[in-house]
Amino acid sequence: MASARPAFRLIRPPFFQQSYAYRRPGADFFRPRFAPTAANRYVSDGVPPPPPPRGDARREGRREPPAKSGRPRPVWPSASCSLAPSYTPWSALRCRKKLRTRASSADTAGPQVTGEPEKLEAPAIAEQDALSKRESGVSQDSPMRLRMEAFIKEHQKIIVSELEKLDGKTFKVDSWERPDGGGGITCVLQEGNVFEKAGVNTSIVYGTLPRAAISKMRVNHKALDPDVDSLDFFAAGLSLVLHPHNPMAPTVHLNYRYFETSDKDGKPSAWWFGGGCDLTPCYLFDDDAIHFHRTIKEACEKHDKSYYPRFKKWCDGYFSNKHRGETRGVGGIFFDDLDETEKDQENLFEFVQDCLSAFLPSYMPIIRKRKDLPFTEKEKLWQQLRRGRYVEFNLVHDRGTSFGLNTPGARVESILMSLPLTARWQYMHEPEKGSREERLVNVLKKPVDWV
Amino acid sequence: MASARPAFRLIRPPFFQQSYAYRRPGADFFRPRFAPTAANRYVSDGVPPPPPPRGDARREGRREPPAKSGRPRPVWPSASCSLAPSYTPWSALRCRKKLRTRASSADTAGPQVTGEPEKLEAPAIAEQDALSKRESGVSQDSPMRLRMEAFIKEHQKIIVSELEKLDGKTFKVDSWERPDGGGGITCVLQEGNVFEKAGVNTSIVYGTLPRAAISKMRVNHKALDPDVDSLDFFAAGLSLVLHPHNPMAPTVHLNYRYFETSDKDGKPSAWWFGGGCDLTPCYLFDDDAIHFHRTIKEACEKHDKSYYPRFKKWCDGYFSNKHRGETRGVGGIFFDDLDETEKDQENLFEFVQDCLSAFLPSYMPIIRKRKDLPFTEKEKLWQQLRRGRYVEFNLVHDRGTSFGLNTPGARVESILMSLPLTARWQYMHEPEKGSREERLVNVLKKPVDWV
Repeated sequence: MASARPAFRLIRPPFFQQSYAYRRPGADFFRPRFAPTAANRYVSDGVPPPPPPRGDARREGRREPPAKSGRPRPVWPSASCSLAPSYTPWSALRCRKKLRTRASSADTAGPQVTGEPEKLEAPAIAEQDALSKRESGVSQDSPMRLRMEAFIKEHQKIIVSELEKLDGKTFKVDSWERPDGGGGITCVLQEGNVFEKAGVNTSIVYGTLPRAAISKMRVNHKALDPDVDSLDFFAAGLSLVLHPHNPMAPTVHLNYRYFETSDKDGKPSAWWFGGGCDLTPCYLFDDDAIHFHRTIKEACEKHDKSYYPRFKKWCDGYFSNKHRGETRGVGGIFFDDLDETEKDQENLFEFVQDCLSAFLPSYMPIIRKRKDLPFTEKEKLWQQLRRGRYVEFNLVHDRGTSFGLNTPGARVESILMSLPLTARWQYMHEPEKGSREERLVNVLKKPVDWV
Repeated sequence: MASARPAFRLIRPPFFQQSYAYRRPGADFFRPRFAPTAANRYVSDGVPPPPPPRGDARREGRREPPAKSGRPRPVWPSASCSLAPSYTPWSALRCRKKLRTRASSADTAGPQVTGEPEKLEAPAIAEQDALSKRESGVSQDSPMRLRMEAFIKEHQKIIVSELEKLDGKTFKVDSWERPDGGGGITCVLQEGNVFEKAGVNTSIVYGTLPRAAISKMRVNHKALDPDVDSLDFFAAGLSLVLHPHNPMAPTVHLNYRYFETSDKDGKPSAWWFGGGCDLTPCYLFDDDAIHFHRTIKEACEKHDKSYYPRFKKWCDGYFSNKHRGETRGVGGIFFDDLDETEKDQENLFEFVQDCLSAFLPSYMPIIRKRKDLPFTEKEKLWQQLRRGRYVEFNLVHDRGTSFGLNTPGARVESILMSLPLTARWQYMHEPEKGSREERLVNVLKKPVDWV
């Protein structure tokens, strides 16, 4: 029962006014396809952006100069361990707690023998990464861990900035670190002008998977070595959920993540990318579903013709309230476990970047069109019932949420920012025959190929 | 995705005006400690009821006369199979579907061979019970299955009737059967005068546990034979959740159930009772918690001095939002797996009867006192946030709900009647220092011994 003091410390810096440690001139190592200015123009005018400079830095072999010592450190959490809803095996937390215990007793009692040696060692990659970032920042040649971290944090800023422009109100930003290493950035806008609740989170996790967790994870991730007692791992992810006020405007969700394990020497042993996005309308406008799917399909097809149909189907299967025989919404894409058996790491990173960069173009035109449509009280009520379904999916079926909530010490408020502000459950509510509500339910029962 | 046509058929009889098949003069086989008239007086005046006639029928060896043939059958579902949230392994449903298939093809094609013989056989006990009830009703000498069914259905009527008197509005009653055997009675009052949402359900299940489910269940129920491929089982339960409008009035939950397995010859092989009740206030009145616990404690102590402290602790542990480090409310009792290693069946049935009979005396005085207290908008908002926590427990942690929702073909509306009408999730809401809200949260973090 007792949770004692929270396992994390909140810091609330005005960090959106700060520049990143890794954002230095010429550092286009993560191809900022949707850099603030270009993004604004694209999103505002609907004009496609110019083709991005692809791989210039790589070709030219540019690398950032090492940071000067004595330079003030960024408040923005860097090589720290944070709690991602989807990625925090509790062993990772225990590991940190035990480390602290050991450190405090080391001076007087010397090294302890606990019988759980694998949980006492800090993952080697965390220290490597922290050092590398401090000394030379993040570049094209940095490990994928640091490039993914830099990429998602950059996009978190861009997305939050665009949403603030649309809403007129600002996000509450909680950047938090755990005392013994770790942190995350949770941005939430609540009771805004356009959004009832909007959350945009990034999280970086360094942890250790114990044997039981490895066996469990192997079901979906065959690359994991089943013959080790524990595995250091890294995970970086951006996740986003937007619930607008207006029942005519759809909820949207997005999550992209990178996962890596390493052996005792800190050498990467397995890695994969995962993620997706999906649209959840309360009132269905076919145009919106078509636009959303078309934008994502274009991003997919730059990389592989098979991606969109495969990942669209996967999405319909995953984001499904199986107990109701309904999908959560009109879908999008979902994928997991994309590793070297699919494509090389560089290609897959580019694919994930394109997917994430497609988010604002896929959703902003829709929310602009729908946010001020008139609606009735009855329509608002229907929205609340659909919000209830959203809660059902997130709490009953979503593996990430369930895993996070069953993780002692996890930051519950970051995990549950995905829930709507309000929801409703009405016994035996059924939409009227021939109504728009009924049409939506029919589509959710039998997913449509929108493009 | 496709749920095709629902696996159950709704019938909505005016059954509260009907008498039960098993309620015949002198049939006090389930000791109606809280019979309608006595109950009314007790609940209204707070006067303890006279000591009940205990075991008269048993001593006198009374047994009901067999029903006359040609007498109209009760519309109230009798020896049927229903979907209890906690007790519907999907194998049971598959079993019924396959039976139907076989029956329809039997005339032309003869018996089918499918490779899953254990799922094709209807549990023998279902037919035995149906026959026995039709021929001689339910008596003191009937199997525990039928006595428990009769007892919970009787109490469902009593409780619904008392709640209707209090609220002034009537419950919507859905009595439903599955075409190939099965049914349940779901009573829901929504947007009443006192209750935002109130549900009182009974369900009777005859089904078959496959090997995997047996292994899983053995963790808590050691009496199960691990060396069989499948087991016929029976489960009967009453479950109840009341969410009042007024934030000063607490939500209450109750569930009592009987479970039995039988071998191929229809002989009982293992059985146990389980259940409990707990109180969930949004604003804590110590008097209410004390009264609730004292009433339950008295019921427990008639049977065993160790019951209350053991089951109170079990309740605090089970009804807990572990991810928040809070109990759901101020507790009550919870127990499971009470079998012959605890006490004999007759004793345990009496214990469960006393627990269920203590419900109205434990809750009605509280709701009467609190239902009309004045409250502010801010207090209503706090209630909505606490409702969110209730949803979290039910959807994330409650084993019965999760099992039910993951059961294809289950009646979702009956399972989710336990959810409040409305709920709210607000990012980083924290009660003010020294407020009543903060006091509640402190109590939930560190359960109190109320009596």
